[in-house]
Amino acid sequence: MTSTIAAISTAPGVGGIAVIRVSGDNAIINCNAIFVNKNKSVSLLQQEAYTVSFGSIINAKNEVIDDVLVSVFKAPHSFTGENIVEIACHGSVYVQQQILQLLIENGCTLAQPGEFTQRAFLNGKMDLSQAEAVADLIASTSAASHRMSLNQMRGGFSNELIKLRTQLLNFVSMIELELDFNEEDVEFADRSQLKTLATTIETVISRLADSFRVGNALKNGVPVALVGETNVGKSTLLNVLLNEEKAIVSDIHGTTRDVIEDSINIKGITFRFIDTAGIRDTKDKIESMGIERTYQKIEQAAIVLWILDCTQLSEHMEWLTERIEKRAVGKKIILVFNKIDKIGSEEREVLSQLFEPFEGERIYISAKNKTNTDELQNALVAAAQLPEINPGDVVVNNIRHYEALQKAHSAICRVIDGLDSGISGDFLSQDIRESMHFLGEISGQISNDEILGNIFSKFCIGK
Amino acid sequence: MTSTIAAISTAPGVGGIAVIRVSGDNAIINCNAIFVNKNKSVSLLQQEAYTVSFGSIINAKNEVIDDVLVSVFKAPHSFTGENIVEIACHGSVYVQQQILQLLIENGCTLAQPGEFTQRAFLNGKMDLSQAEAVADLIASTSAASHRMSLNQMRGGFSNELIKLRTQLLNFVSMIELELDFNEEDVEFADRSQLKTLATTIETVISRLADSFRVGNALKNGVPVALVGETNVGKSTLLNVLLNEEKAIVSDIHGTTRDVIEDSINIKGITFRFIDTAGIRDTKDKIESMGIERTYQKIEQAAIVLWILDCTQLSEHMEWLTERIEKRAVGKKIILVFNKIDKIGSEEREVLSQLFEPFEGERIYISAKNKTNTDELQNALVAAAQLPEINPGDVVVNNIRHYEALQKAHSAICRVIDGLDSGISGDFLSQDIRESMHFLGEISGQISNDEILGNIFSKFCIGK
Repeated sequence: MTSTIAAISTAPGVGGIAVIRVSGDNAIINCNAIFVNKNKSVSLLQQEAYTVSFGSIINAKNEVIDDVLVSVFKAPHSFTGENIVEIACHGSVYVQQQILQLLIENGCTLAQPGEFTQRAFLNGKMDLSQAEAVADLIASTSAASHRMSLNQMRGGFSNELIKLRTQLLNFVSMIELELDFNEEDVEFADRSQLKTLATTIETVISRLADSFRVGNALKNGVPVALVGETNVGKSTLLNVLLNEEKAIVSDIHGTTRDVIEDSINIKGITFRFIDTAGIRDTKDKIESMGIERTYQKIEQAAIVLWILDCTQLSEHMEWLTERIEKRAVGKKIILVFNKIDKIGSEEREVLSQLFEPFEGERIYISAKNKTNTDELQNALVAAAQLPEINPGDVVVNNIRHYEALQKAHSAICRVIDGLDSGISGDFLSQDIRESMHFLGEISGQISNDEILGNIFSKFCIGK
Repeated sequence: MTSTIAAISTAPGVGGIAVIRVSGDNAIINCNAIFVNKNKSVSLLQQEAYTVSFGSIINAKNEVIDDVLVSVFKAPHSFTGENIVEIACHGSVYVQQQILQLLIENGCTLAQPGEFTQRAFLNGKMDLSQAEAVADLIASTSAASHRMSLNQMRGGFSNELIKLRTQLLNFVSMIELELDFNEEDVEFADRSQLKTLATTIETVISRLADSFRVGNALKNGVPVALVGETNVGKSTLLNVLLNEEKAIVSDIHGTTRDVIEDSINIKGITFRFIDTAGIRDTKDKIESMGIERTYQKIEQAAIVLWILDCTQLSEHMEWLTERIEKRAVGKKIILVFNKIDKIGSEEREVLSQLFEPFEGERIYISAKNKTNTDELQNALVAAAQLPEINPGDVVVNNIRHYEALQKAHSAICRVIDGLDSGISGDFLSQDIRESMHFLGEISGQISNDEILGNIFSKFCIGK
């Protein structure tokens, strides 16, 4: 018999309504103790699954705490696979706390972060990667991150991995059977079939692991370094970009992830800005600490926005740009000429010639007047080179899955190599087992309390 | 045919789940366009009232946006009296916005603040004072304010007023009938029965209007002026008091009321602190602006906390206290001797004798060490003199109701006087009509768009 847990499942604070969720063997019994149906002759115990009733929450003195709607779901046909009662009450913080308090007085325990989803996993309602996707879905702030987590929550790649892992299990069982008969030199497991399977698995795993670059960028934002001398209009530009989308970003609090700062969402892609210290135009200190740090930041970025003041080009600009290009190998550099409103067409021509040798994209803007900032946004989206995620597309965005995939990949490659070189069954079996282990970690077929604790502690309470 | 409105009804931000509410003639049709039941053969149009189904929200391209639970309620058996669909989705801000967007694309309009409750009122599901209590209930932060608004939402005093008003209507109809026969000098309306009714109404109205002092204090907090010289430990004391309950206060954001600052909740009563400038102990400037302002603040308070530093009594303290007492007529004054840990029992004896003539309560505390702050809290609760609100107790806490009650009271008193002095039926009728008008304003039987707009604009969206 499991304990019955309760938590406020809606966002913290005051709203029109709030929902308190109760799950466990005694969910209906515990809620019945504090609920009176408007039609007094009907008890919650008699309420059918997937129905709602209107009534009041009462305390031990029979005083009404609130008028509520109560939905009942019965094991195993619920989110957690257990009995669930959802109480929709008025969204006062006081009322929410009072009802939660009453539930605890009547035998419920306060749910831990993610405990509802953890129970769903433990009761086989979803595998571990699907459970993790629930948290990602809740934290998603863009079309792309939403779609990735939704695809994963609804089955995603783990179904395929589970199927392949089962096929591996069949092979490894046969190989281990061979070992029992090792004096007779039999081969129950068809080596060429095994190689076909291992190659298929290697392909699947490679494809999934490769998708992590995109998945990670979509989930955590494409890192963009903003580089420029002081007073070139770096922060004005950042504000212009941020203001357009700030509402979305500032809404995100209380999630499982750290607060996102200086992130913007452009056409469904999140860009995460890495601030760099403004470079001072002092020739003799050109190799100072500040620059060195800026170089380091550039290395963390996928895109470098190199911002210049059209009206005041540093005399060693060309040299600086060259240095930055050298450090930013493999990164996209976008040269942003700011304060374009302050120069004439002739000066612009000069600029254009000066930067002729530079291969990256050039954008002319006025951050202050918001001129051409659209163009800059388009350039960022193009530079991110992120494919659109379509429904059903499989993208790995979880570092835990990525690491497990990498380890499974090494093991399955050893299996292929071993088959090619004809190694003995016991070594083969060991590599297959290892590969299976890491595949199982993704779906949660292999898990332990530490892994689970780690995963679910990052959830919000009430989910 | 009414428009169909939609809004996110749960608190803003990220949560485990969020609820989007849709109400109106087309609620079910509009939601059906974006919902696919997990059992694909079942349409939302066939779903029975007060049942929940599991399925997916899909966009126009048939792409899944989220897996949701959908509850259906059918007119007139719903909160608004209209068809209602409630969509419980994953609590991502992105998902919430996407679903709302889809609803709007499918014919819903964005609900105005309080529009669901306004419709409940317009459809006769509740009267106006009950609708107003919904907002109060959501904003309630203490046991007392919660109970007042809950009592009012569940019927409260308006039922009684509506009944009395109906009886007045019978009388006024008869009196006006008399006027049609005015040449015949008939009396259809029994004057003594009318006087009995008017007296009953006067008593009821008086009782309700009198309850406003308590209701207002419970709703908006009992005003407490903190008075004292600089460095007597005023702010330390305030922090000690606030810290104990700050969690409750700081939870309140996004409500219809302004953010409450420097309020504490002690034993279910909210105290609102009115800060006063620290009085400087400079004898020649004793009548300065600062003191004058402090005096004014004292007049706004119900309770005055006069804080003294035990270790450093001002030489003209007695004189000052006397002045403050004079200004604080009718207020409760509590003399708080702070830093009691720094003096011995002899000095304490001297203090006690010095303030012998002072009639108010005296409390000896150390704010820094939190000594006796419990006692101070008890003294504040006692000084507030607020009766405990029991279930069913009728307390007016709404200034609109209070003003209407006062006006109705004047009119009904004129009716009683008129009956005593035997004024003519047409004057009598006019006063009765006026009284009825103001009683009707409370319940909403008399209302206009301006009044309604004013009331519901203070609600949160989604309620």
